[in-house]
Amino acid sequence: MSHELVSVAALTERVEAIFVKAGFSADHAATLGRAIVAGERDGCKSHGVYRIAGCLRTLEAGKVVPDADPVVAEPDGAIIRVDAKGGFSNLAFARGLPVLAEQARKSGLAALVINDCVHFAALWPEIEDITAEGLAGMAMCPSYATVAPVGGTEPLLGTNPFAFGWPREGKNPYVFDFATSVVARGEIELYRRAGDPLPEGWALDADGKPTTSPEAALDGAMLPFGGHKGSAISTMIELLAGALIGDFTSDKALEWLGTTTIAPRHGELILAFDPERFAGGRADPRATAEAFIGAIEGQGARLPGQRRFAARAEALRDGIPLTKAELDELDRLEKEGAA
Amino acid sequence: MSHELVSVAALTERVEAIFVKAGFSADHAATLGRAIVAGERDGCKSHGVYRIAGCLRTLEAGKVVPDADPVVAEPDGAIIRVDAKGGFSNLAFARGLPVLAEQARKSGLAALVINDCVHFAALWPEIEDITAEGLAGMAMCPSYATVAPVGGTEPLLGTNPFAFGWPREGKNPYVFDFATSVVARGEIELYRRAGDPLPEGWALDADGKPTTSPEAALDGAMLPFGGHKGSAISTMIELLAGALIGDFTSDKALEWLGTTTIAPRHGELILAFDPERFAGGRADPRATAEAFIGAIEGQGARLPGQRRFAARAEALRDGIPLTKAELDELDRLEKEGAA
Repeated sequence: MSHELVSVAALTERVEAIFVKAGFSADHAATLGRAIVAGERDGCKSHGVYRIAGCLRTLEAGKVVPDADPVVAEPDGAIIRVDAKGGFSNLAFARGLPVLAEQARKSGLAALVINDCVHFAALWPEIEDITAEGLAGMAMCPSYATVAPVGGTEPLLGTNPFAFGWPREGKNPYVFDFATSVVARGEIELYRRAGDPLPEGWALDADGKPTTSPEAALDGAMLPFGGHKGSAISTMIELLAGALIGDFTSDKALEWLGTTTIAPRHGELILAFDPERFAGGRADPRATAEAFIGAIEGQGARLPGQRRFAARAEALRDGIPLTKAELDELDRLEKEGAA
Repeated sequence: MSHELVSVAALTERVEAIFVKAGFSADHAATLGRAIVAGERDGCKSHGVYRIAGCLRTLEAGKVVPDADPVVAEPDGAIIRVDAKGGFSNLAFARGLPVLAEQARKSGLAALVINDCVHFAALWPEIEDITAEGLAGMAMCPSYATVAPVGGTEPLLGTNPFAFGWPREGKNPYVFDFATSVVARGEIELYRRAGDPLPEGWALDADGKPTTSPEAALDGAMLPFGGHKGSAISTMIELLAGALIGDFTSDKALEWLGTTTIAPRHGELILAFDPERFAGGRADPRATAEAFIGAIEGQGARLPGQRRFAARAEALRDGIPLTKAELDELDRLEKEGAA
């Protein structure tokens, strides 16, 4: 596919301008732009330019506050709470991050709770911001109910992403970020467009019966990854990043929104761990981790996130490759906003 | 299979006496006995009477300190550290638990770090102790290297259990506890004895090639559950409950022990979350959780741990059913100690 190379700075400027024109405050436009461009830069097209229209549709539907001014509360013990005030999560996270990092260094372990945010982004950029502080991080959030618990028949769980990162000096961090559903919903859409049957074990139809039909799956429910274990982890995410923090679980998020076609509103939970404090002067945590990560690579297994880091290195050197369709989409968004 | 019903109190007394006779301190005998009897009471035979001999063999091999006196350090921020001093983890956890609970109420979130413990127990009894305090809990630990990372060829990860619990008023807590390998090693042993081939995707042979032969699998490596996602979670456990806390990863644990036939030495990480503090006066976390858990049950999906709770109710009412072989094993252990 032919493409044009666009610098990170140039793409950021275009994306920010689209958000500003649509009515977002400069702060929101900047953090939204950063998230979208990070997706494109790292070859994660599913979180790139393609997402802009969804963000704008969420605004047009009145389901996000474009100039919300997130408020970071004084730390309550090890808990840092950010009220996103109905705005996109990205700005709330950016404001909470320095306080989270400071508290993690102070108490060894700290939690960032984001409430009442609208969420469309991958979690790995946030995890990378935490590892850049020399901390380990864990992040999770609900979504809208599109996944049936194992043994169940109806959508109840969200695709509930779970992400973790470990800082590595002078190297890209160890980072993973995945949906706790077998696949993301967009993957099923790709099978539908291609007219291919789904692999077994991905989805249920509207009657709660296993199906390999993409259409039936989109009317029914996806399944969690890893059988009852993945289902349990996804449930944990509902309880910790929903109930625990006084926010929506995925069923309530869907009820509130009434659709899965725009970005959902719920909360997010992020934990930060300070390796020095946790190790308490025993074996060097960084050296132990490097030996272990080295042993994974040493037997030829790939670390998660490597494709992203490779794409990033190329994009920073050569520019971000955008297709004609993506450039046309940017042109259109600049002129018309969301479709 | 014919069996005899033994009361929890009577079995506890017999098991404790076996540990005392073997040379364990009264405190260790009590916490070991409690763990073994909890396994039998809840129908988890894999963590019941069958484990006693392994504990005694660990002692005979000089790989556990039978009268270790675990020391709970003053809280360092949100971190409570217990030095198990080479003893079994159970006593270290019991001593750390009240301090963990107090700190979790004080700072909303707290971590219990156990170092230099010898580990043979399931994590759900510890998680239940945390939920009994009205807190949510997460626990994890390495093991010895018997699992290859996805894409790798050799044992490096442990079976690395991951457990979580949520407190429910007047009801059994929501609790899960599972190995992050496809199955526990004992399961492969059962296939070997039955002469049955393993399902695809469970294991690699000694050359790192996929195998369905139980013998080849036992000489090779197991695989993580859930493909690259389970492999990532298992790696996270090595980093958080190994490197982070200044303790062994699973490869180092195996190196130190030199065998997988007795209990491994490493550390453990347990997090406790106070729902009231995390919810911060927003939606009631318990009510939200009850609605969500009710919705799981409402569509016919089983909650994790239900088989254990059912077995427990029966055992507390009627006694614990022990087979002739298990009673003979107790007799033998009382007379001879480990084989």
